[in-house]
Amino acid sequence: MRAKDDRPAWKKRLYDIIYEADTPLGKLFDIVLLILIVFSVVLVMLESITHIHVEYYWEFFIAEWVITIFFTIEYIARILVIKRPKSYIFSFYGIVDLLSTLPSYLGFFMGGKNLFFAIRALRLLRVFRVLKITRYVGESNKLAIALKNSKAKILVFLFAVFIICIITGTLMHLIEGKDSGFDNIPISIYWCIVTLTTVGFGDIAPITPLGRLLASLLMIVGYGIIAVPTGIVGAEYSRATDASLANNTQVCPHCNEDKHLSKAEFCHNCGNKLNE
Amino acid sequence: MRAKDDRPAWKKRLYDIIYEADTPLGKLFDIVLLILIVFSVVLVMLESITHIHVEYYWEFFIAEWVITIFFTIEYIARILVIKRPKSYIFSFYGIVDLLSTLPSYLGFFMGGKNLFFAIRALRLLRVFRVLKITRYVGESNKLAIALKNSKAKILVFLFAVFIICIITGTLMHLIEGKDSGFDNIPISIYWCIVTLTTVGFGDIAPITPLGRLLASLLMIVGYGIIAVPTGIVGAEYSRATDASLANNTQVCPHCNEDKHLSKAEFCHNCGNKLNE
Amino acid sequence: MRAKDDRPAWKKRLYDIIYEADTPLGKLFDIVLLILIVFSVVLVMLESITHIHVEYYWEFFIAEWVITIFFTIEYIARILVIKRPKSYIFSFYGIVDLLSTLPSYLGFFMGGKNLFFAIRALRLLRVFRVLKITRYVGESNKLAIALKNSKAKILVFLFAVFIICIITGTLMHLIEGKDSGFDNIPISIYWCIVTLTTVGFGDIAPITPLGRLLASLLMIVGYGIIAVPTGIVGAEYSRATDASLANNTQVCPHCNEDKHLSKAEFCHNCGNKLNE
Amino acid sequence: MRAKDDRPAWKKRLYDIIYEADTPLGKLFDIVLLILIVFSVVLVMLESITHIHVEYYWEFFIAEWVITIFFTIEYIARILVIKRPKSYIFSFYGIVDLLSTLPSYLGFFMGGKNLFFAIRALRLLRVFRVLKITRYVGESNKLAIALKNSKAKILVFLFAVFIICIITGTLMHLIEGKDSGFDNIPISIYWCIVTLTTVGFGDIAPITPLGRLLASLLMIVGYGIIAVPTGIVGAEYSRATDASLANNTQVCPHCNEDKHLSKAEFCHNCGNKLNE
Repeated sequence: MRAKDDRPAWKKRLYDIIYEADTPLGKLFDIVLLILIVFSVVLVMLESITHIHVEYYWEFFIAEWVITIFFTIEYIARILVIKRPKSYIFSFYGIVDLLSTLPSYLGFFMGGKNLFFAIRALRLLRVFRVLKITRYVGESNKLAIALKNSKAKILVFLFAVFIICIITGTLMHLIEGKDSGFDNIPISIYWCIVTLTTVGFGDIAPITPLGRLLASLLMIVGYGIIAVPTGIVGAEYSRATDASLANNTQVCPHCNEDKHLSKAEFCHNCGNKLNE
Repeated sequence: MRAKDDRPAWKKRLYDIIYEADTPLGKLFDIVLLILIVFSVVLVMLESITHIHVEYYWEFFIAEWVITIFFTIEYIARILVIKRPKSYIFSFYGIVDLLSTLPSYLGFFMGGKNLFFAIRALRLLRVFRVLKITRYVGESNKLAIALKNSKAKILVFLFAVFIICIITGTLMHLIEGKDSGFDNIPISIYWCIVTLTTVGFGDIAPITPLGRLLASLLMIVGYGIIAVPTGIVGAEYSRATDASLANNTQVCPHCNEDKHLSKAEFCHNCGNKLNE
Repeated sequence: MRAKDDRPAWKKRLYDIIYEADTPLGKLFDIVLLILIVFSVVLVMLESITHIHVEYYWEFFIAEWVITIFFTIEYIARILVIKRPKSYIFSFYGIVDLLSTLPSYLGFFMGGKNLFFAIRALRLLRVFRVLKITRYVGESNKLAIALKNSKAKILVFLFAVFIICIITGTLMHLIEGKDSGFDNIPISIYWCIVTLTTVGFGDIAPITPLGRLLASLLMIVGYGIIAVPTGIVGAEYSRATDASLANNTQVCPHCNEDKHLSKAEFCHNCGNKLNE
Repeated sequence: MRAKDDRPAWKKRLYDIIYEADTPLGKLFDIVLLILIVFSVVLVMLESITHIHVEYYWEFFIAEWVITIFFTIEYIARILVIKRPKSYIFSFYGIVDLLSTLPSYLGFFMGGKNLFFAIRALRLLRVFRVLKITRYVGESNKLAIALKNSKAKILVFLFAVFIICIITGTLMHLIEGKDSGFDNIPISIYWCIVTLTTVGFGDIAPITPLGRLLASLLMIVGYGIIAVPTGIVGAEYSRATDASLANNTQVCPHCNEDKHLSKAEFCHNCGNKLNE
């Protein structure tokens, strides 16, 4: 219905405010939204601390509903002013926006609040949309390219790590047994992941000589193979940086020399002007 | 006997299904096998959780035997259809395949099941054969080259780490003694490995000022030298990537020499012009 | 008042001794100051060990006041000999210098000593001024450039880490609850940071299967994404090194443009020949 | 006395056997020595395990003296056959060799054995001399260059780490106090090193909200700055590798083009022969 090109003028203006950040009002809207999102997440955090929650029950109650109602209005406005509402509702941010308001209503009508806690913290994801417009994300473009290029290799790496953990976990369960906390294979695999990633909680730790020998091997492997993803991302990032430096080059129309400095105005090879 | 070139047609067809993945049936076989392997490993994991094992004893029993019989048939089929069965039986995957079926039979006839647990988890290694055909492994070629080139340096590095751990371990045993868990030198060396690799379980920790000073030094060394394998693998990976970039350059039309510099105009081998 | 150009000769000479390190007396002053700073910090450390403090109470008292009086004289001298005292008093080092003397006087008149402990340890920051003149800091120039270029990307990275910790922390609080120490969301977030950074104290650790699964994921993420800052700093450092290599190239004799490509024959700015 | 050029022939032959590894006898000597060193260190380790030491007292006693006498003979022989004995006796390896034999004699005459334990483990350092001749050390040349070039920067880095630990340690002592194990500033600094290096034993851990906040910051800093040494070593290693690749280049005598492939016989720029 509303997917027509001829939206009324107020919708177009509201669209610019809500979805864009070029106008002063649009920027203001983004800043207010950013503050509210951060405030709402801090609220959820503080609410989880029992003695604070008990003491300031009504303050939390009111603040929660003010935020919920603002987010609800914003959600409805976003649907109203966009050309194709469906493309927004079923997009990632559309679902996040819905999940930012729904839990409060559900918690109000159904009583059980704990269950909707986690979902409310998802509000934080909204921050990314607001920040999309800042210069910081532009900075991370090369990083995104590097990570995208590394994806397949890092998946192979994680798969290898996972296989190592399953086999070592099974062996540790057999060697250590129930006395030192290696009760079953899933727990042993959990311990292997804790150890291989060099986290090492210490709630479970081997006590037999053979178990400690195997644990030592696992630790040295974990310590050594961290080099693999680091090396990959570093090299890929280095390549992405080089590529973006070399991308905006021109070819000299006189001698066909390429790879000029991006600020070059004359060809470094034949001395003629580059852009005529 | 069966090592003749003139295998019957059904053997050739079965060979294509079992060993290759080009035909639809071959792909289906690989997927079914992959699912069964993962399923059998998950089974072993769940079986190790006592209360689940007790509750679903018969379900585990039946599932285990269905998988064992399928793997047995597959193992026999692999021997039957290949030209040189010995080359398969004594290969790495041949032994892994045998170890995927044998423990169940041994456990059935000899009673003691625990002993064969670890061996059954080795089934997971079969996953690698099935995955060999996927594109992900192709992606890790450069990584393999980088790791191969780094091997000698990483061995020197691990040897140095090992010497540091032995000497520090001996000193810690002398400084801390039995009060804080450094009962003997092997345990102290184990603690050094736990500390140097930044795992830090905390089941053993120094309590004397001198022990803590030495531990601090060890930690800073461990924190610093992680840079060494990381730097090596990164640089080698970077080089492997560059080398593969230089691979696809022109071939000299006179002497067929390849791998020229990208800016080369004359062949570095015979001196003739490259692009005529 | 004292901000005139025509300072008396003794002020100029004292200025050279205190602020510069070119003369033998200036060097001596810096070395004496360096020793006193290190000595005063060691004093603060030892004073915090109760039984040492009790035993050597008067020795600490005298040493503390000798240092305080020396630092006070130095502080006054620094104000006297400089041309614009305000620029010193309100500079970073001016405030650090004041904080190196003030706590002792405040502690003497007001009794409570504990409160001024931390501030006295700030004396250590003075070390940086003295070391500014050594060759080591010169070595870290490229490093500083690399870190400056990486700043924006590392902020994005830290922001992403922070968001991961908040969302995982909320989930862990819901999954584990109060039984295993995840009392509220801020504590759970603290645990997430401990885990993601692979520190892993073990004072709080998940005990439910689902909590351990989520913890495993978090650890693998933490283990993997360490690659990101490492890769960035490595690549930027590599680039800073390359750039400093390219710095010492020829200057165009026609337009004085520098930083040409090393193979350039013509100036990229004015198009004239470079080496005539 | 013995420092004359005209040593008898048997001394020269013995010198070749003991100090060199070119002859078959020299190689055999090195291998026997290597085995004995490793054996003696394993002996020290096992001796530290109380119940093994008690049970096999005489076996340890005999083995220890066989090794000691062999090392003594070797030490005397090394002095006898070398041209300038003083240069050997006061060299690093000369002192290590002496320390490999002396503790056993001192322990025999003075009774107290524990004290000489650590010194006996220093025997392991002798391994490096024997391994000097293997190809592995040759492999690590570039690594050594990279580490040497990184030395100054890594010292600056470690100094910064140390300052961070002192200041944070003082703050943690003030914030947490004696209740959670931060008894005095040196212990707090020890805890900071444990945390910053991501080891995290957990024997000491903050319990106050403010302490945990500061700890979180310290962990994130520790997690982030590991990138610095890693990036430096990686970049330096990369440069050392490039330098060794680019070193053996030639300049074309016809067109002065440089940076040819190391196997190039003709100039890639003008097509003329390179080495005429």
